[in-house]
Amino acid sequence: DRFWFSISDLDILLWAQGIALGMKLDVKIFEPDIWPLAVQGPKAEDVVVAVFGEAVRKTKFFRFDNLEFMGHKFLVARSGWSAQGGFEIYVDDAVIGVQLYDALAKAGKQFDIGPGCPNLIERIEAGLMTYGSDITRADTPLEAAMEQYVSLDADIDAIGLDAIRAVAKRGIDRRVCGLTIDGPKVPANRNPWPVKVGGKQIGSVTSAVWSPRLETNVALGQLAIGYTPVGTKVLVQTPAGEFSAQVSPVPFDGATKK
Amino acid sequence: DRFWFSISDLDILLWAQGIALGMKLDVKIFEPDIWPLAVQGPKAEDVVVAVFGEAVRKTKFFRFDNLEFMGHKFLVARSGWSAQGGFEIYVDDAVIGVQLYDALAKAGKQFDIGPGCPNLIERIEAGLMTYGSDITRADTPLEAAMEQYVSLDADIDAIGLDAIRAVAKRGIDRRVCGLTIDGPKVPANRNPWPVKVGGKQIGSVTSAVWSPRLETNVALGQLAIGYTPVGTKVLVQTPAGEFSAQVSPVPFDGATKK
Repeated sequence: DRFWFSISDLDILLWAQGIALGMKLDVKIFEPDIWPLAVQGPKAEDVVVAVFGEAVRKTKFFRFDNLEFMGHKFLVARSGWSAQGGFEIYVDDAVIGVQLYDALAKAGKQFDIGPGCPNLIERIEAGLMTYGSDITRADTPLEAAMEQYVSLDADIDAIGLDAIRAVAKRGIDRRVCGLTIDGPKVPANRNPWPVKVGGKQIGSVTSAVWSPRLETNVALGQLAIGYTPVGTKVLVQTPAGEFSAQVSPVPFDGATKK
Repeated sequence: DRFWFSISDLDILLWAQGIALGMKLDVKIFEPDIWPLAVQGPKAEDVVVAVFGEAVRKTKFFRFDNLEFMGHKFLVARSGWSAQGGFEIYVDDAVIGVQLYDALAKAGKQFDIGPGCPNLIERIEAGLMTYGSDITRADTPLEAAMEQYVSLDADIDAIGLDAIRAVAKRGIDRRVCGLTIDGPKVPANRNPWPVKVGGKQIGSVTSAVWSPRLETNVALGQLAIGYTPVGTKVLVQTPAGEFSAQVSPVPFDGATKK
């Protein structure tokens, strides 16, 4: 059997190697030469279809298919870190990979496709969390507001599942949520900003930015569970002063609309 | 029992957590709030003695002692990443830590002590390897020329020891060594440079710099084992052209002399 993990910023490979060693499993864990190529945005599906064919449309959110381009099978996943959705292609052949890049660029010409990177404003508007700031190793998927992606009742044997079940039973005491912060444009936040109610700190804002489209400051943070219902009024202590704020649904209004 | 690991750049903590999980060990692994403070250089011992007392002189290379400053016990280790040696102090109290910093600065005034960072030229002259370039996860201590720090015959049960013993028995096929590169000042190397003999690549240079003191280019690299004896002549392919080079003892001549 062969499994792929796409590990992002965390060196979870070392953790997997430790588990394999500790359990004396007969596995080989290695990092393959893979260069992920992301096609993201509202027209991503049309661009990827132009290169890989109509089959792409059937791939569900965070699922993948092995699709052919120039005789080579690429793993194409409907995943990625953008508000409008898109695809991540796992390029394992440098030569055909360059041809794939050119083909995608050509197919995307009508949509002005080009090299890009995540946009801070859009990221926060969409509620896309950053590992290391919005969520850390100390958070389970429950504190990270990702409970919809965890099957607590499934009859499977998974590391950590018992621990998460225990947390779910006991109830979490803090949770990631969205906030709109009143007042003028807030500065960039390098450190978490205290969030207070009645002079007592009840959480912190971990990402914040002025949204020109929504004409307000949008933010992500973790608050004590009693303060997470939408509409709860709090005070955020920014370097520019204390401003009133309120818990908002995430994604922020209209953020994922095309 | 309580063990401390000082993990440098590699997130080996995740590996340890994996092993503990896999072996179902009853351990708690966590990252404490520790800020290592290094006092390095030829006069480091005198400076640290001035603050922690004469006991410091008895601490052996890469050993440590718990020494008192202002009523607080600090772990003081004779370790660090400099050619002349020195000490690393594991500061676990922010307030007394600042007072310790001031006391060290005051004691070091006569030696012009001040904030500093590793020096690339001195690092290479001294043969101090960088994890990630000179050595990687693919190297055992044997390829890394660190066999003197490994007890292959000791009657201990250690993860990986059997594997290293097997490598030692079979013999390694490549090893880190020093090189002097002839010709003009070489540019900084961002990628490994091929090392050739008779038109065939037999290794690569991973770190190189012009040494004004030794008036030659000094370098670290890994070569096929047959080419590692001191004096072996090779060809190094740099972005500035191909230059003759020879395997050198490490540290490079005079690099660790006071």
